[in-house]
Amino acid sequence: MRNKNILIAQGGGPTMVINQSLIGLLINAKRSGFNVYGSLNGVRGIVNNNFVKLNKISEEKSELIANTPSSILGSTRDKPDTKYCEEILKVLKQKKIDSFFYIGGNDSSDSLRIISEKAKIDNYELQCVHIPKTIDNDLVRNDHTPGFGSAAKYVAMAFSGINLDVRSLPGVYIGVVMGRHAGFLAASSALLKKKEGDGPHLIYTPEIDFNIKKFFKDIKNIYDKYGRCIIAVSEGIQDKKRRLIANYATDLSEKDSHGNVQLSGTGSLGDYLVNQIKKNLKISRVRADTFGYMQRSFLGCSSEVDKKEAMLIGKKAFDYSLNSKQSFSVSIIPRNKFSLPYSIKYGTNSLSDIAAKTKYLDKKFINKNQNFITQSFIKYAKPLIGNEIPKFVTSPK
Amino acid sequence: MRNKNILIAQGGGPTMVINQSLIGLLINAKRSGFNVYGSLNGVRGIVNNNFVKLNKISEEKSELIANTPSSILGSTRDKPDTKYCEEILKVLKQKKIDSFFYIGGNDSSDSLRIISEKAKIDNYELQCVHIPKTIDNDLVRNDHTPGFGSAAKYVAMAFSGINLDVRSLPGVYIGVVMGRHAGFLAASSALLKKKEGDGPHLIYTPEIDFNIKKFFKDIKNIYDKYGRCIIAVSEGIQDKKRRLIANYATDLSEKDSHGNVQLSGTGSLGDYLVNQIKKNLKISRVRADTFGYMQRSFLGCSSEVDKKEAMLIGKKAFDYSLNSKQSFSVSIIPRNKFSLPYSIKYGTNSLSDIAAKTKYLDKKFINKNQNFITQSFIKYAKPLIGNEIPKFVTSPK
Repeated sequence: MRNKNILIAQGGGPTMVINQSLIGLLINAKRSGFNVYGSLNGVRGIVNNNFVKLNKISEEKSELIANTPSSILGSTRDKPDTKYCEEILKVLKQKKIDSFFYIGGNDSSDSLRIISEKAKIDNYELQCVHIPKTIDNDLVRNDHTPGFGSAAKYVAMAFSGINLDVRSLPGVYIGVVMGRHAGFLAASSALLKKKEGDGPHLIYTPEIDFNIKKFFKDIKNIYDKYGRCIIAVSEGIQDKKRRLIANYATDLSEKDSHGNVQLSGTGSLGDYLVNQIKKNLKISRVRADTFGYMQRSFLGCSSEVDKKEAMLIGKKAFDYSLNSKQSFSVSIIPRNKFSLPYSIKYGTNSLSDIAAKTKYLDKKFINKNQNFITQSFIKYAKPLIGNEIPKFVTSPK
Repeated sequence: MRNKNILIAQGGGPTMVINQSLIGLLINAKRSGFNVYGSLNGVRGIVNNNFVKLNKISEEKSELIANTPSSILGSTRDKPDTKYCEEILKVLKQKKIDSFFYIGGNDSSDSLRIISEKAKIDNYELQCVHIPKTIDNDLVRNDHTPGFGSAAKYVAMAFSGINLDVRSLPGVYIGVVMGRHAGFLAASSALLKKKEGDGPHLIYTPEIDFNIKKFFKDIKNIYDKYGRCIIAVSEGIQDKKRRLIANYATDLSEKDSHGNVQLSGTGSLGDYLVNQIKKNLKISRVRADTFGYMQRSFLGCSSEVDKKEAMLIGKKAFDYSLNSKQSFSVSIIPRNKFSLPYSIKYGTNSLSDIAAKTKYLDKKFINKNQNFITQSFIKYAKPLIGNEIPKFVTSPK
């Protein structure tokens, strides 16, 4: 079956470069004479018969779309169940879709796995292709995921500015960074750090057991030394019993359809930590910012490396799909070493290898004191944020 | 008295371009053969005898400093009382300072006014020069203040990205923007809005009487029409009795030495509004981000217009100081009309005309419904954020 009809959709949280992958796929599919349908708001657009034909988008408009942050086709948090899948397959059959490309994270890849398994049972020859994106960088069997580099750049640039701000008006500052399960983004707060005394001074990620007494001690050490302390904290930090610290901070327990507690879009974790520090360390100027949605959607902060890779992974996804009838997830193959010059290769994984699995910060990326990252992480992540970083100094001397 | 010794310091909250004014002043002062001292951490550096000589800074380093956000000499929230002033004058006499230049907002200009009055009483011939900066843009007798354009650009760019993010995953979104008394920054959230349906849809500033029932009604209207609602709210919104809404949201009442309640560095106002909306409108996806310190210190988001003006106002401050023995505040003269091409002129005000006074959003900048801004505000503020804005689209069609 090759009707030369393909469908593309975008799922989960947006990134600054998710449209690069869309346009990359579109360019190669058009070149091969395929009809490309876009579903609006992910899988929801399929069951609602809400499609756009993408072939007629001009080259100029394509470039604008590619450079626009967030999912231009809209997204969804829907996770298809059996009935939802039946609906999807019914519509895909009607539209004679050969291949369904879904740009998303591990929840989206799991949705694809469910759909592709249901199609097999139905004897419907459907190729499901997962194109990775997630700012959290928590996809297994991938060196990193498109979207991460740009979010990491935002976080690194924000902390560079914050370092200067808190030098100017000293105190304790906490930046709460996205990252439910994995601390890659919080770790990235240190990517533009120049000197020992610069912030961030402390980094806490979900991978470590967060202990508030040790947290106070760590802060006191830094504050006594520098008269200021800048801290990056993942929204998903957890105690020894793997209970979210955010749960101590709030009575809210809103959950999405994947069963996740709301962590973003609220300042409660930051405010909780500020109050604890004020109470226990008697430091008067303690502030917290919760970085929020700017991390994934700020205009004009994307990494040129991330942009290029996101475009290319969309193209690769299409090219690989031509050579196979199987479903798969396209991937950036993990580097063996983080040596320069930086270069990566693309490959494929089976959907079940990726779906609903989580990659965590490697142990070698976290320091012995469990309160900062290692040089190894810098070597791993620095190339991903690109070189278009404004120059700055940290002292008049 | 012309010992050709001048002192410069930076006070209050930093901005992205405050170092431009420092370097502008330094360039012209060096050209005229003056010794330029910098005081570290504002007036505090004077009483602590904490100075750096700035003359030897190389041209290359000067350029780097100018482009670095936040106050490179450090800042302070100290407000000198009589005893503090005596200490200041003692040190200034010792160092034979002719003119003291203080880059700051209305609190800093008030500090200068107090120092200059005390100097007069002491018969000490001291010229005090105020160089305006504030992201809040709330200085009277100034068209706008250096620092505002860059912060406004950050807010406008953030809301452009948020508009795309919330299009993609619909709901109600609140962005809490800096602005204790004046709503210029919250108003700037609309500067890059393209179409009627784009966010922000609603804007609430301290100048209007915030009524939560009207707030719910406004949101419902927008949400029913577009299926989403994006709102910009000033941190300093107040009810009819001029009570801060943030006070309803928090039990904290930390105050700085100027008697101001802490509004930034906490997510409590946003969280309070989110909970009120969820409870009263039964909308499930409601999120708030508190924009925080990135508004004034984010690396790489300054407006090229703001940078240029901040540099020039530093130069003008020095040039005017040569022609006068009086203390003064240098200013950007208010435009009569907001017609293009955009151009501004510089002038001076007396310190007492500026000190501790607050400029508010003009009535003509706020719409009739008191929930958005007018085209007149766009005409006023759009030139200030410059033209270096990435291109983007809001729909695939």
